[in-house]
Amino acid sequence: MGKGRITIPTDAGFVEETKKIMKEWGADAVRDCDGTTLPANASELADKVYNTYFVIRGDYDWAMANKDEWQHVYLLSGFCTASSDTLKIRLMDGYFEQQVKPDFASDPKKYWEVIDRTTGRLLDPAEWDFDEREGTVTVKKAELFHDYTVSFLAISLWDPVHMYNSITNGWTEKKHIMYDPFYPKTAKYIREHLADWCDKHPETSVVRFTTFLYQFSLVFNDKGKEKNVNWFGYSMAVSPRMLDAFEKEYGYKMRAEYLIEAGRYDSSFNVPTKQYLDYMAFIEKFVCDTIKDLVKITHEKKKEAMMFLGDCWIGCEPYGEYFSELGLDAIVGSVGGGVTVRMLSDVEGVRYREGRMLPYFFPDTFFEGNEKAAVDELNRNWMTARRAMLRNPLDRIGFGGYLALAAKFHSFMKRASEICEEFRVLYDNVKGKSPKNFLTVGILNAWGKKRSWMCYMVAHELWYQQIYSYQGILEALSGLPVDVRFISFEDIRKGVPADIDVIINAGDAGTSWSGGANWLDEEIVTSVRKFVWNGGGFIGVGEPTAADANGKFFQLRDVLGVDKEIGFTLSEDKYNLTAKKGHFITEDLSSLPDYGEGMKNIYAMNGTDVLDIRFDAGHMRGVNTGEVKMAVHSYGKGRAFYAAGLPYSFENARLLYRAMLYTAGKEDSLRRAFSSNVLTDCGYYADKDVYAVINNSADAQKTDVYDIKGNKIVLNLKGGELVWLDGKDFPSAE
Amino acid sequence: MGKGRITIPTDAGFVEETKKIMKEWGADAVRDCDGTTLPANASELADKVYNTYFVIRGDYDWAMANKDEWQHVYLLSGFCTASSDTLKIRLMDGYFEQQVKPDFASDPKKYWEVIDRTTGRLLDPAEWDFDEREGTVTVKKAELFHDYTVSFLAISLWDPVHMYNSITNGWTEKKHIMYDPFYPKTAKYIREHLADWCDKHPETSVVRFTTFLYQFSLVFNDKGKEKNVNWFGYSMAVSPRMLDAFEKEYGYKMRAEYLIEAGRYDSSFNVPTKQYLDYMAFIEKFVCDTIKDLVKITHEKKKEAMMFLGDCWIGCEPYGEYFSELGLDAIVGSVGGGVTVRMLSDVEGVRYREGRMLPYFFPDTFFEGNEKAAVDELNRNWMTARRAMLRNPLDRIGFGGYLALAAKFHSFMKRASEICEEFRVLYDNVKGKSPKNFLTVGILNAWGKKRSWMCYMVAHELWYQQIYSYQGILEALSGLPVDVRFISFEDIRKGVPADIDVIINAGDAGTSWSGGANWLDEEIVTSVRKFVWNGGGFIGVGEPTAADANGKFFQLRDVLGVDKEIGFTLSEDKYNLTAKKGHFITEDLSSLPDYGEGMKNIYAMNGTDVLDIRFDAGHMRGVNTGEVKMAVHSYGKGRAFYAAGLPYSFENARLLYRAMLYTAGKEDSLRRAFSSNVLTDCGYYADKDVYAVINNSADAQKTDVYDIKGNKIVLNLKGGELVWLDGKDFPSAE
Repeated sequence: MGKGRITIPTDAGFVEETKKIMKEWGADAVRDCDGTTLPANASELADKVYNTYFVIRGDYDWAMANKDEWQHVYLLSGFCTASSDTLKIRLMDGYFEQQVKPDFASDPKKYWEVIDRTTGRLLDPAEWDFDEREGTVTVKKAELFHDYTVSFLAISLWDPVHMYNSITNGWTEKKHIMYDPFYPKTAKYIREHLADWCDKHPETSVVRFTTFLYQFSLVFNDKGKEKNVNWFGYSMAVSPRMLDAFEKEYGYKMRAEYLIEAGRYDSSFNVPTKQYLDYMAFIEKFVCDTIKDLVKITHEKKKEAMMFLGDCWIGCEPYGEYFSELGLDAIVGSVGGGVTVRMLSDVEGVRYREGRMLPYFFPDTFFEGNEKAAVDELNRNWMTARRAMLRNPLDRIGFGGYLALAAKFHSFMKRASEICEEFRVLYDNVKGKSPKNFLTVGILNAWGKKRSWMCYMVAHELWYQQIYSYQGILEALSGLPVDVRFISFEDIRKGVPADIDVIINAGDAGTSWSGGANWLDEEIVTSVRKFVWNGGGFIGVGEPTAADANGKFFQLRDVLGVDKEIGFTLSEDKYNLTAKKGHFITEDLSSLPDYGEGMKNIYAMNGTDVLDIRFDAGHMRGVNTGEVKMAVHSYGKGRAFYAAGLPYSFENARLLYRAMLYTAGKEDSLRRAFSSNVLTDCGYYADKDVYAVINNSADAQKTDVYDIKGNKIVLNLKGGELVWLDGKDFPSAE
Repeated sequence: MGKGRITIPTDAGFVEETKKIMKEWGADAVRDCDGTTLPANASELADKVYNTYFVIRGDYDWAMANKDEWQHVYLLSGFCTASSDTLKIRLMDGYFEQQVKPDFASDPKKYWEVIDRTTGRLLDPAEWDFDEREGTVTVKKAELFHDYTVSFLAISLWDPVHMYNSITNGWTEKKHIMYDPFYPKTAKYIREHLADWCDKHPETSVVRFTTFLYQFSLVFNDKGKEKNVNWFGYSMAVSPRMLDAFEKEYGYKMRAEYLIEAGRYDSSFNVPTKQYLDYMAFIEKFVCDTIKDLVKITHEKKKEAMMFLGDCWIGCEPYGEYFSELGLDAIVGSVGGGVTVRMLSDVEGVRYREGRMLPYFFPDTFFEGNEKAAVDELNRNWMTARRAMLRNPLDRIGFGGYLALAAKFHSFMKRASEICEEFRVLYDNVKGKSPKNFLTVGILNAWGKKRSWMCYMVAHELWYQQIYSYQGILEALSGLPVDVRFISFEDIRKGVPADIDVIINAGDAGTSWSGGANWLDEEIVTSVRKFVWNGGGFIGVGEPTAADANGKFFQLRDVLGVDKEIGFTLSEDKYNLTAKKGHFITEDLSSLPDYGEGMKNIYAMNGTDVLDIRFDAGHMRGVNTGEVKMAVHSYGKGRAFYAAGLPYSFENARLLYRAMLYTAGKEDSLRRAFSSNVLTDCGYYADKDVYAVINNSADAQKTDVYDIKGNKIVLNLKGGELVWLDGKDFPSAE
């Protein structure tokens, strides 16, 4: 039994038991959690003691003494239609008065905007008045039956995460109010407070920042329920002082509309505007400069600085400009599957990366009679994470919650102990040992590197009907033997980088993920065409390269071999309506794929090989209609593959792997360091000449395993098993 | 047994049998058909003798002697991508060399266009060359990996309808070549030929024009199969002389692109451009002027002029500007259902309107052992047409094909005879007898009146997956007790006409049917808002009022109470996720409606009553997603109704009727002149105080029938039965 790389929660009243469990699991770190307190002698328990720290909230007295430095948020009123010639708009309609209130004190005529949402016209401030007592804005002379909005700055009265927990769990602790370090008193205060806190917490070895300065957008409605949640949103990283400073530095006014975008706010589904990118850069610079100071203080106090990836992470994106300069020791985040593993494990510029595994030790899982379910969740979480760990493992894993609760479940404790050991062995064999990848894939969208492993997310890790058919691509990639890069349109403008073998463009038309108007940029389309023509691979999912212009909906329909019928070419007969049987890409499918939400009205051009086409049996009457779901097309020396959607499944992961190999012309690489059964995966590590074969299912599996030269053995795996092989386990080709 | 209003086909070898059948059916007219010849003494057989006449084709010798006046067509080459710096485009790739050939003789540099379809740039003629021998155009200096097209004028070598029939049926008759009456020799010739033909056909009383001058777009591919078929297309109503005349009259050049639109041609799904409308007006004027002459000649020869609605009908649209000035006696067209009945029966400016019923007497139906199927088709055709006849009957019905074939099927002959009689009784009771309608509905789209009953059509009467969910609305309306008007955005710009109770806007985003950019026109949106606010009804189906701008996708989401989530507001939580039970609109549904293709990602705003919402059981994991399929919303004194799609069914027709009454605030009118069973319909004719109740199903039905005052009786109907009642059949309310 090894030791290390494991963090467990503890509590002041559970010290002896903690010691026992630490030994059983080989844990070397303890942490506190909501509702627990670290034991006084925590540092005697473990090599590392994590302690949660809030930078801009938690000091109620300081907040109350400095009301002029509370944080702000940009909000949009409802869309109000004028049925008479004056229109009064109630700003707080739909908002939660315990969370926010309009900031009438910071010149509304300067920071607020009233916009005619029928014509898009920005009203002159003289055209409207505000009334603080009523909480209203009045359009003095409204155009009849036009609709209007007010974009206004509000003051945040309560940190929304704390507010949510307080309301949900009946906490009686004083409100956490967010103060803004962009203001001078708070800027000074947060540095001094951290130094002071470090002095007062000698037992702490790791300051677990939860998190830094600005909360992602999290706004509640008038019933106290979530109204808007955008894990990437900057609408709470705003204040009059920031807006003024931005204007001074960038030479133009940061209009409310640049952040609010008619209520679409700064959704990462928007193709970002120049103004929004400028604002992000401005905030990121300020946040990162501040974090550098905080890290410096932490280090001076002989502690490590660990960032929690969430909550107030705005402006310190791990794949942003300055992240690797921050000096942070570690990053930690929750792990829900392979994507979240890679989101953490691929982060550069920290010494270690930690994943908090599931289940959380909370009463909703750890209640009497639910032990099997808890073990199942643990196994499921580990098995989905392990696929990604084979490609790039986390440096540590940990758990959270009340250890005392979990300790009552003996089979859970035993299985967790096994997983901790399996993780350590995996780490030793894999980390830095040149995992073999067979090609490099570039995920092309409007965000590129900045949103690495974060595409299609709305609320962190939550499932949405509109995203799972694309999100599945990333989940598949997280565990496939390919190098994954996230590239932007700017990255390919002057040519696709030479190391890219395959480009994937996947998303709904108009979104940042598909690319929107980028596909009307001739440098972009010619760059991709040239890349494929000369032998590159192109994979489109959903509505790739979509923009309605030039008689095409998919601007690269000549590459993809498919387009979407949006009504204007119904007059054109479609004849390519027969699916080709037996293709390299579909060979491992037991049945045709699940495309998730799929995509309607896709048709194949002449010369395209249709791999799957569906006819609506209920309605179809034989006219030339059929919906193409999957197709391949040759273009010069290169190839393209289209799929209507790729939600995550083991079969779809294999389909995607084969599609990448096929479009890159690397079919010969398939049976190298490869496990044939779609429920299994194989990793190869050249430095040690070892192979990991994992069974991703709970049932026993039989599979052919090929070594790096293509020699085969047959392997039987128990449910969930990981087997290590080395080169000598395979028969020689001679 | 009555007589009249019935046309049957006959043949020279079938005279005696024809007489017998005419008596049995009460027929008063005979016609010829493809492959038959009228008997020499046809005029002794019937009151009317129809004879097919072609204006611009059929005289092979004249065509061969006047090759300089053959008709033209505008075509677009394939989209060709430049993989080197010269690009040679083969014009005829994908086209059928027996149908068309490029017209190199009419200055290509003047009439052709080469366009860069990556940037949309029109190339200067100096930038390209053509080679007649090779049939190519060469872009001299192509931009690498841009794609290019050539829009070129081609000469029509063979009338496509005749070509299709010749190839399919192995006809050996000489080609019908189309000559262009826009040229002087042909203009003179077609007049003289008609006069001469009339003289030579004394037995003919009705000249059945099939049709006039220009064929709708019908282009074949290189395998001799249909490539592009657009029943409304003007791409074959074009010639160098026309283009020159247009420029002279309108003061600007009619560019090829205005008609070709990057390969979307002049699909009526496009929101028409000003240039295209100008061109249509130009052609319509010329065509109608010519037809006036032809009609005059026909009348001078003491014959009637009947127009077949199809084939060469371009420029003489029955709902166009000049139609009622033509002097035509009649219009005839095929009847596939209620919509095609109304398309004919609502035409103004002719003395009578005739529908050619199904089945056609051709061997594909009338073969041994298929008699029951033939009768079933006859019944189905009659029952779907009859619903619409209750609202506005045709003046005549008829059949086509080989009478000798049908005559062998005795049960068919008997049933046809019954239907002829039922039609005559219906006509006498209904025609001009003020059918009672309870409200006026305006179908709002970019075409308005011009495309009355023709919305959503591609190839005439053919089913397409992309249209049936909207087409069902028209089929439902064709038989409902409402006045139907087709209105354009211009018609409502200064206010919705006072007689409109309900507006329907239905179609896919961006199409002429939904309206596209018209919904960004503030006069349009305020006009509709005002109309509904003051008590009007608004019904949206599919993607009504759609245009992505101002933070909204449905620009009138404030009226409709629903919008479509296209990705940009996924961050906004949706809470209106519970369907209201028991609503006036859905009361007669046995289960929730079939929405056909439906519509994804629709969500309801607060304050909207959701009537149906679907959750994807296979994938959904409880996050705030659900697809609203049907909803109602109040707006001022008015109401709106939304449905994801309304393919035709008896239940959906009832649903639509109730939705119209509800949104117009006329729920009290429901049980007036009304038959409760959804498989039945009721019509009321005040002039005679009579009621028609029809059973639209083949099975017996029981129904409550309400008179105009709301008094009820219970009625049992046999399968397919029509029952006449009068006011005295109902109990008095006292």
